This record gives sequence, C-alpha cells and structure tokens, in this order.
Amino acid sequence: MHDYEVIFHQIGVIHSPHKVLSKTPIQPVFCNDIRGTVVLDAEYADGLKDLLGYSHIYLFYYFHQSHKTCLCLKPYLSDQEYGIFATRAPHRPNKLGMSVVRLDGIEDNVLYVRDIDILDSTPLLDIKPYVQRFDTRENTRSGWQDTVSDEIASVRGLRDSEE
Amino acid sequence: MHDYEVIFHQIGVIHSPHKVLSKTPIQPVFCNDIRGTVVLDAEYADGLKDLLGYSHIYLFYYFHQSHKTCLCLKPYLSDQEYGIFATRAPHRPNKLGMSVVRLDGIEDNVLYVRDIDILDSTPLLDIKPYVQRFDTRENTRSGWQDTVSDEIASVRGLRDSEE
Repeated sequence: MHDYEVIFHQIGVIHSPHKVLSKTPIQPVFCNDIRGTVVLDAEYADGLKDLLGYSHIYLFYYFHQSHKTCLCLKPYLSDQEYGIFATRAPHRPNKLGMSVVRLDGIEDNVLYVRDIDILDSTPLLDIKPYVQRFDTRENTRSGWQDTVSDEIASVRGLRDSEE
Repeated sequence: MHDYEVIFHQIGVIHSPHKVLSKTPIQPVFCNDIRGTVVLDAEYADGLKDLLGYSHIYLFYYFHQSHKTCLCLKPYLSDQEYGIFATRAPHRPNKLGMSVVRLDGIEDNVLYVRDIDILDSTPLLDIKPYVQRFDTRENTRSGWQDTVSDEIASVRGLRDSEE
C-alpha cells in the first residue's frame, strides 16, 4: 500500500439544473441539451484561451456527495454487482468524476455548456479539451454496459436513488 | 477563489518503457502497441472485477514530474502559446493526467495494457472503463489540434523536450 497523498485544489464550481442527487442523469449522452455553467475561479481565466475552438470538453470534478468507498456495487444501470473500476459510480477510492460536455460559449471565467449530468455546486478540478484523434476509439467492447439497453440507461433520472 | 482542498491517495503505480520525460510520447494513439503494466495496490484488487469485459480503459494519474503551473504555454505539438485548459500539458493547476489504453489482461492486482504514453513509475489515482456510448463523440471540432498533422504529432518522442 502506498501512503502518497495528492492534494488538488478546487478551481471553480459547476452549476446545473440537477439539484437532487437521485434525479441526476448518469451520463451526458442521456441529458441532451441540458444546460449548465462552469464558473472558473477568476485567477485561472487566462488558462481558457483558445478553448472555444473545441466543440466538446472534459470536466473533471470531485464527487463531493460521496462519503463512502465500495469496491463492489450495483451501479444505477444494473441489478448486478460489479467491481467499482468497471463502473463510473461515485463511491470510488478517489472520488474523481469525469464528463464530456458540449461547449457553447465562454465569457471571461464562465463557460456555458450543454449535455450536463453533474450535480449542482460540484467542485471543479480540471478542464481538458476533447480531441477526436486522441479520444475516440473504435471497435471497443464495453463489458456489462453492452448488456444495458439505451432505453434502460436513459431513464435513470426517473428511478429512486440507491444512495 | 476557493480554498477547498481535495485529498486523493495513490492507489497503485504505472510501469512503462518510458523512463525519460523528454522521450515519452504525448498520447496513446501515437504509441501503438507499447506495453505497460498497472500495479494496483492489493487492497483494491476486488474493484477490478468485471473490468476485463472492456477493451479500453481510462487511467487517471498524477503528473508527478510537473513542479510548476503555467496558465499559458507552448505545447509539444505547437510553437504557439495556448491556454493550459486548451491543452493536455502537465503544468496545470491540478496535475491530473488521463490516458485511454487498451486492456490486454488482468492477473490479481496487475493490469496488462497497451498503447501507453505514461512515464514509468507514475502514481495511479483511478481507473474507469471506456464506454463507447458515453465517450465517443462525432462531428467535433478540436481547436488548434485540428491544425496539427498526424505526422507532426507522432514524432513527439523524437524531439527534445521543453521541460
């Protein structure tokens, strides 16, 4: 076991219409057109230069509402239990979240985004550009996710939470 | 400015043939077939259950060789200066790295991966599955990256580093 700690700092806050954890969709692809804003701390605003050339960006954030770690769990899309690293669930050893969102605009230190699946007031840790040639893979296998229909996946917002 | 700190813990270590920062390729798509291993701390091994169903995974790691923050910089692929959030460069406010790699096999707490662009001995922070329907976007714009040819991008390992 390592005892190496990595300290990150919140660099902004993510705002969205998702105020309740149990009603928050699980992935941006299932919340088409839902709009949010990312308010970067003003001191980092210079780092946003040239970002608007990208149509999509990654947001990295802290699952601040997760207060436990489960090595195996039933994710929202399934009634079976899977290893935590085979899921995107929040209750991971390090509570790092990632979403790909569409970037609509930037004004000073505020980003206007769409397709947002993130809980309101989530602490922002990083922003990276989505680069098609780096990030798109073809002919992939998606494990247990391949057994979940899009229909089932998209109704997550209507189910009760197991939180 | 926020003063909220997020403490992550190293959960394993990434091994690769890339021993020298200046010779490390910049993205997995440019180091096709280069093999590495990810040694997860044994206490987390149960979290790997079902991961082998995925052909590709994300590795999240700490850029432990980055000791400064630059809000604007010239990335390896360009002689122009860009905002840090419009690049994947290490010298970010939070030194979080991300790569998509191919997963060849798992033995206990060791993952065998391919297409690795990560420096040897890098601290691991998280593993997530690459899920085609969540992670593949079409018709994207990739900003200044669209102006860099694949040929130029792929020779990064041969250039001197600006580190």
